[in-house]
Amino acid sequence: MLVDGRHYRTIWPAGGGGDVDIIDQTLLPHELATVRLKSVADAARAIADMLVRGAPLIGATAAYGMCLGVRADASDDGLRSAYDALIRTRPTAVNLRWALDGMRDLLAPLSPGERAEAAYARAAEICDQDVEMCSAIGDHGLGLIRAAWDEGRETVNVLTHCNAGWLATVDWGTALAPVYKAHDAGIPVHVWVDETRPRNQGSGLTAWELGQHGVPHTIIVDSAGGHLMQHGRVDLCITGTDRTAASGDVCNKIGTYLKALAAHDNGVPFYVALPGPTIDWTISDGLGEIPIEERDGAEVTEIRGRTASGEVTVVSIAAPGSPAANYAFDVTPARLITGLITERGIAEASAEGLAGLYPERAGSGNA
Amino acid sequence: MLVDGRHYRTIWPAGGGGDVDIIDQTLLPHELATVRLKSVADAARAIADMLVRGAPLIGATAAYGMCLGVRADASDDGLRSAYDALIRTRPTAVNLRWALDGMRDLLAPLSPGERAEAAYARAAEICDQDVEMCSAIGDHGLGLIRAAWDEGRETVNVLTHCNAGWLATVDWGTALAPVYKAHDAGIPVHVWVDETRPRNQGSGLTAWELGQHGVPHTIIVDSAGGHLMQHGRVDLCITGTDRTAASGDVCNKIGTYLKALAAHDNGVPFYVALPGPTIDWTISDGLGEIPIEERDGAEVTEIRGRTASGEVTVVSIAAPGSPAANYAFDVTPARLITGLITERGIAEASAEGLAGLYPERAGSGNA
Repeated sequence: MLVDGRHYRTIWPAGGGGDVDIIDQTLLPHELATVRLKSVADAARAIADMLVRGAPLIGATAAYGMCLGVRADASDDGLRSAYDALIRTRPTAVNLRWALDGMRDLLAPLSPGERAEAAYARAAEICDQDVEMCSAIGDHGLGLIRAAWDEGRETVNVLTHCNAGWLATVDWGTALAPVYKAHDAGIPVHVWVDETRPRNQGSGLTAWELGQHGVPHTIIVDSAGGHLMQHGRVDLCITGTDRTAASGDVCNKIGTYLKALAAHDNGVPFYVALPGPTIDWTISDGLGEIPIEERDGAEVTEIRGRTASGEVTVVSIAAPGSPAANYAFDVTPARLITGLITERGIAEASAEGLAGLYPERAGSGNA
Repeated sequence: MLVDGRHYRTIWPAGGGGDVDIIDQTLLPHELATVRLKSVADAARAIADMLVRGAPLIGATAAYGMCLGVRADASDDGLRSAYDALIRTRPTAVNLRWALDGMRDLLAPLSPGERAEAAYARAAEICDQDVEMCSAIGDHGLGLIRAAWDEGRETVNVLTHCNAGWLATVDWGTALAPVYKAHDAGIPVHVWVDETRPRNQGSGLTAWELGQHGVPHTIIVDSAGGHLMQHGRVDLCITGTDRTAASGDVCNKIGTYLKALAAHDNGVPFYVALPGPTIDWTISDGLGEIPIEERDGAEVTEIRGRTASGEVTVVSIAAPGSPAANYAFDVTPARLITGLITERGIAEASAEGLAGLYPERAGSGNA
């Protein structure tokens, strides 16, 4: 999407010699800086230190990391050592393993002389496929926003939680793809942006990318959405998801469940946008079966920000010595979800709904 | 309650000559400092600059402000000028006017020579009555915590939102009074403290006062309560309220409604603690009739904290240029509230429930 009027992806080949540029997301929203990846070690660091985040973007960065590895050493040893360096970075990320296994299986049978070219071609293909999938999600979701506008609203108000925008993917995003499509189609759309404590991906990333693309938006604290829905200020909610159960239960950033409850209580449609690969076909009970990551309490008691003099620093915001718990995700039961927006269309959040869109997967365990 | 092992109120006569000490709550949780009020101007500044906050404590401070005024000038002019200086500080605070009108009506008929002594006696009485009322709320709420413990729990887990502790009153607090009573009675109680964005009264004030009194607690982001309730980690919720409709609808800090929804969805009892004077007998539809204050968006996009070197500073935490909306309160419908804990006992959250406890008020319009 646009930054300072120029189109960006989150990752792209740069410099002409096979290097790769990324946006350093740890510096946003305070500074836009790109970082040039020149080696497999650079790519591994970018993933491990969260310069890139979001499952699709992690997969794309890992694929380019393999390119940088074989560019430097196309031998079997070089291939293996690049794989090993990258797989260690975020051991739980599904897309990371998927991208690395795919690259290894593609490159291993080739002669060393053929590997670099094949690697770069495949990495570019992974990025393009992600963009296509997100664009298709956007097209399907656009219909929902257009329908709300056709009902006579002056502006369609969408509430979102966390960042499921283009910064989490290669371009377009998942939850925000319908918003960008609507905005670009001239439909007046405004986004209520949950700040998304504790890491503030909403006020820091979602607000930043919406602002850069020119989409009207307003940051709110995570507690405000219920009040807005009580007073008719939200027309629909759209969030992303980290893992979707085959039953339609959705695991997403902590707090998603509370927004779904408020939407249900106030008759506001609640949609979740997701690419098919995030469906876990082995899980039928999201609440019982999806483990919830517990992160460092310091993410709650400390915060990074910019001082009046422009310096970015970390400050402590809680009572000294008080412990904090930091659950990263929660599970929203399918009963609270109006529909799932996928690259293949919109499904009811149920086993039947998902099986209808993905008949080749349903009932088969995981892919 | 206790601070560093010593018993404190939030306001007390000091120095023997009629001066008054308060805790400067703008410095908490980073620093505990008391401020000595020596004049009506000092008292007015303490209220206006929010060194003291919470309706009961504002009323008590205003009453002592009148004492300081007549100590310096007990004439009719002195009385009037003290009243005028104090009434301007927080024009919407109900307790402020109530305390000042009461002091004026008491002092005006007296001769100047009698006024100072009467003023100090009445201010002390206002404080003592507040303590008694909060203590009675604590005794009634204690029964709920004891009942949860008697069911065989090792620890009773209470979730609270914002600060309705002793810092908001003269002592004990409202929502936290039952917790302190239970802790002091030897019942193992643990509090999940919502940080309460945007002003962080939870992580800054509630966590601080619980920690100082030795009550086990854990800070969580405002989004986490639903997840905890889904997994049986919350036995009951208790919050305070800024205004209660005669119908039992409750206006409280933004986000209270979302916690009540989650409690209802998971069968967790949801109680609101309040002194009788916060009931607005003129209002029967909380959602439709209670206006919601909208505050400066900078409270959402900026935050005050302490750097590693110990300096307290303000940092910007959101995308530069992105607007923020800041609704201070929301309304929780009576249907989601298990009961109202008052100084007279526990009422059902309904017109009938409140009328049963306050028969002299019900149906009569406001007092």
